[in-house]
Amino acid sequence: MTAFPLTLAQYREAYASGALTPAAAVREVYRRIAAQADPAVFITLRPEAEVTADAQDLPAGPLHGIPVAVKDNIAVAGLPTTCACPDYGNVATEDAAVVARLRQAGALVIGKTNLDQFATGLVGVRSPYGVPRNTLDPALVPGGSSSGSAVAVAAGLVPLALGTDTAGSGRVPAGLNNIVGLKPTLGALSTRGVVPACRTLDCVSVFALTVEDAFAGFSALAGFDAADPFSRALPVGRPGPLPLRVGVPDGASRRFAGDRLSEAAFDAALADLAALGATLVPVDLTPFFAAAALLYDGPWVAERWEAIRTFITERSEALHPVTRAITERATAFSAADAFAGRYRLAELRRAAEPVWQTIDALCVPTFPRPQTVAALAADPIGPNAELGTYTNFVNLLDLCALAVPSHPRADGGPAGVTLIAPAGRDAALVPLGDALHRAGGTPMGATGARLPPAAEPGPARASGDEIELVVVGAHLSGLPLNGELISLGARLLRAVATTSDYRLFALPGAGPRRPGLVRVAAGEGTAIATEVWALTPEAFGRFVAAIPAPLGIGTLRLADGTSPKGFLCEPEGVRDAEDVSGHGGWRAYLAAG
Amino acid sequence: MTAFPLTLAQYREAYASGALTPAAAVREVYRRIAAQADPAVFITLRPEAEVTADAQDLPAGPLHGIPVAVKDNIAVAGLPTTCACPDYGNVATEDAAVVARLRQAGALVIGKTNLDQFATGLVGVRSPYGVPRNTLDPALVPGGSSSGSAVAVAAGLVPLALGTDTAGSGRVPAGLNNIVGLKPTLGALSTRGVVPACRTLDCVSVFALTVEDAFAGFSALAGFDAADPFSRALPVGRPGPLPLRVGVPDGASRRFAGDRLSEAAFDAALADLAALGATLVPVDLTPFFAAAALLYDGPWVAERWEAIRTFITERSEALHPVTRAITERATAFSAADAFAGRYRLAELRRAAEPVWQTIDALCVPTFPRPQTVAALAADPIGPNAELGTYTNFVNLLDLCALAVPSHPRADGGPAGVTLIAPAGRDAALVPLGDALHRAGGTPMGATGARLPPAAEPGPARASGDEIELVVVGAHLSGLPLNGELISLGARLLRAVATTSDYRLFALPGAGPRRPGLVRVAAGEGTAIATEVWALTPEAFGRFVAAIPAPLGIGTLRLADGTSPKGFLCEPEGVRDAEDVSGHGGWRAYLAAG
Repeated sequence: MTAFPLTLAQYREAYASGALTPAAAVREVYRRIAAQADPAVFITLRPEAEVTADAQDLPAGPLHGIPVAVKDNIAVAGLPTTCACPDYGNVATEDAAVVARLRQAGALVIGKTNLDQFATGLVGVRSPYGVPRNTLDPALVPGGSSSGSAVAVAAGLVPLALGTDTAGSGRVPAGLNNIVGLKPTLGALSTRGVVPACRTLDCVSVFALTVEDAFAGFSALAGFDAADPFSRALPVGRPGPLPLRVGVPDGASRRFAGDRLSEAAFDAALADLAALGATLVPVDLTPFFAAAALLYDGPWVAERWEAIRTFITERSEALHPVTRAITERATAFSAADAFAGRYRLAELRRAAEPVWQTIDALCVPTFPRPQTVAALAADPIGPNAELGTYTNFVNLLDLCALAVPSHPRADGGPAGVTLIAPAGRDAALVPLGDALHRAGGTPMGATGARLPPAAEPGPARASGDEIELVVVGAHLSGLPLNGELISLGARLLRAVATTSDYRLFALPGAGPRRPGLVRVAAGEGTAIATEVWALTPEAFGRFVAAIPAPLGIGTLRLADGTSPKGFLCEPEGVRDAEDVSGHGGWRAYLAAG
Repeated sequence: MTAFPLTLAQYREAYASGALTPAAAVREVYRRIAAQADPAVFITLRPEAEVTADAQDLPAGPLHGIPVAVKDNIAVAGLPTTCACPDYGNVATEDAAVVARLRQAGALVIGKTNLDQFATGLVGVRSPYGVPRNTLDPALVPGGSSSGSAVAVAAGLVPLALGTDTAGSGRVPAGLNNIVGLKPTLGALSTRGVVPACRTLDCVSVFALTVEDAFAGFSALAGFDAADPFSRALPVGRPGPLPLRVGVPDGASRRFAGDRLSEAAFDAALADLAALGATLVPVDLTPFFAAAALLYDGPWVAERWEAIRTFITERSEALHPVTRAITERATAFSAADAFAGRYRLAELRRAAEPVWQTIDALCVPTFPRPQTVAALAADPIGPNAELGTYTNFVNLLDLCALAVPSHPRADGGPAGVTLIAPAGRDAALVPLGDALHRAGGTPMGATGARLPPAAEPGPARASGDEIELVVVGAHLSGLPLNGELISLGARLLRAVATTSDYRLFALPGAGPRRPGLVRVAAGEGTAIATEVWALTPEAFGRFVAAIPAPLGIGTLRLADGTSPKGFLCEPEGVRDAEDVSGHGGWRAYLAAG
């Protein structure tokens, strides 16, 4: 069984080598589900034969043959959508948008997973379908609301599962089960076909054993959906370099409810961050915590009520008593209260915004400390609220987040950190999340298997929408005009020489000394040292617009086989200029001078 | 008195020539106010001596010495902010952000103008301070809620006045008094220090006699305000060319309440549009009207209640009975209703969005027909609602608008059109608004004075943030690659030749035939025909990134003295190419071939 794949890469490799077929994978998934013997993970498990039939004819997408579990507030055609309320669910006639994308990507939908009823809760115990066992320690709650999806991944039943996340439901159960939870930017994944919790704050989230897999799931599902009024057209992006400036809670913002083991585990993660080269920037989380307080104490609970208005009005006895009590608080809020909450949130967003000018990502504990099933039995509300300390504010403030396992507590209990960034920067969190996960040294979920080695980094290339720019003179690192690139947000990708087709000239004129590069006939040139930088299209446009004659931007031929845009010089500009090609580059020429 | 300035340009000229001083201007303003003899225009008129004292020492800003009236829901330090509710107002201790900007720009604040109480209404009759006389016809309502500000400008008392606009309060009174009303994009002008009507939909608006003046006022006041949670960082922009594709209500969307004179006036404006070269695109306004219905029939009325929660709770008898009745409807809406309204609006925004891919601006009547004071006395609600037919949806859908006088009705009654565009495109409406205003042929407001002649258009240049790009070959208008420019949103600025420093070569190779332009030594070149296009930095960046070798972008020298970025060719690329410079340009060469 250790040879059986756990990660997407392992699945792909097994399929590619012929060691596995999708049908055999289905067999093994159902064997594992049986072996796990936790009847509370799935609310609806599809018959194995049906899934096996699906496996015969799968599209060749990025999730080809990947078994996936889907939280039971997301519609899967032909299965009931119970939201963990048996009287609520009807059989869905249509797939939710993300499920349709799963299928297009070649995934195998195994079944529908348990949750805190109507996705209200961060604990995973508010369900008439039972409490999924925490995969690390059965005394602990599994976390919620996406309890079943998180447990299914942590136990190695499936490599990928969908959750939803309004207040932390895609992060808290990831942290409590030692797996990765990617909570996308609001609107990046369509919520069409998802039963809302708070419709203005809901998103579909992705659970996986590794950051790479979570991001692969996110990438396969992301995309604008004109039929979802809350969908946003956001580029998925590609992971770039490690963020350098990482915000961490300042002294007064550290909240561990007195749990020293959890605090020590977080400090170990911060030490990992520093070892990775990050600068830790203490951040006052006061406006973040104030936003969090709005979520359950403020009018947003009315969204939960509105989502099931008819059902809760007519069948309130059918709800879990805790869920009912929470949801019915909605009726105390007036429309004026709802608007007042919106004003207050706008103020808090404004107050929280400036921090993003000083940090690239924020790193917080995923929760202050783990909670036990017994504690929740004694107090169904307090421990739940505490679990949301570092998660509740994220969607309200329109941020994206990535929960990763980090150093475990000294007693082996789960700890984890969540990386947070502004809307649309999901991809930017991936490299740091992966590095922290690896630094923590935990096995994958509860599988006992180690993380596969990190993929060898490929040559540095522009990612996503970026444009590569080759500089050969005063814009090289450390030279007088390099600051122009930095101030445009450019980042250095690689140092590489041109092909032997160029000559470099020292241009006459005032200001910083600059060279001119000209392509010449075959056999008449030499290789010239360059640096390749990445810029956004807008920054690139502004940069090009500011280049003075006789310099301009054309296409360069580089020794690494690439042909990015870069500095060239009009031939008229080098008519009387000194040919300095013999130095092999501008920096060498300056050093020799 | 005809020599006395009415427009900003006339003020500036009078000040510059020494024919007028700010103190003399103040004297004349107060003389006019006295002559107008309408006690309902101002709620608080500052003592003339105070304003004269201000006039002694004015900053040299863009509104230097310009008298301005301010609607009485906008705080002016030292004056009460009554909102037309005498028991409500306290003396403001601080200027509203826009008033502070007025003063920094050198303007003279004359006083506070009347309004429909708490800016609730489009009629101008809901005020205990009386009804400002409509400047065109005393039988008509002045329009509201910014009644006093509109009348003050239309009567020529001041050249500029501030209003606010939630449902149309900055447009309807402009239309009813034959002046210009600029309703900016939400958040473009700070609302700090403005008593809210619907805080998520409020903006400060500008009244003036001409489009040029309204835009000057807008430009002087616009800017991000970190202390206003609803402020947005938006570039002001500069007016560009006339929009070419103008949406107009389709047959089923035309609403004139059976008034043939108003309908005919609108049709005359449409004929003007066509004569200006615009393509008229019929637009189904169903989603726009559906959004409008949400404003007074939906939960947004709770924002009005929330804005004066304490006052209306404790002192409801102090309100105007109509205002009270409208505002107290808020209490029927729950927080769940508020969220449900937000969901519905999100759906309608999505439904209305696609139209902006087919049009550059929407042109609607400012109101279906004028209303009389008598009609409002008979029914205080119905005629008010009708006046908002074409205005109510604008802020809900996050659009900007410019109301301009157009052809008057055959009976001389007021008509007007409103141009509408997506958020942030305020400046783009200016040229068309000005052209339509002029085409309508009405005098300025009720002053009897003609519009000053249009300023001679300068040579077409890139505006604001745009970058100029010179094309010389396959990207010229009508040639095979011109579509790349169009799809990037580029716009043609001018056709102009290079200086006589270039040679043009027909490049070999597959694909669309392309030339290469190379700058040569003095005396060896010739002038080559080009076109100059304008692109945003991002579009320019994408365009440059896609240019294949041996072409690139450098700096060109043009015969009009400008040096924009444009196409150049590497010398190696023209080594064996045919020199076609003798044709004077690529188009001529192709035609000769």
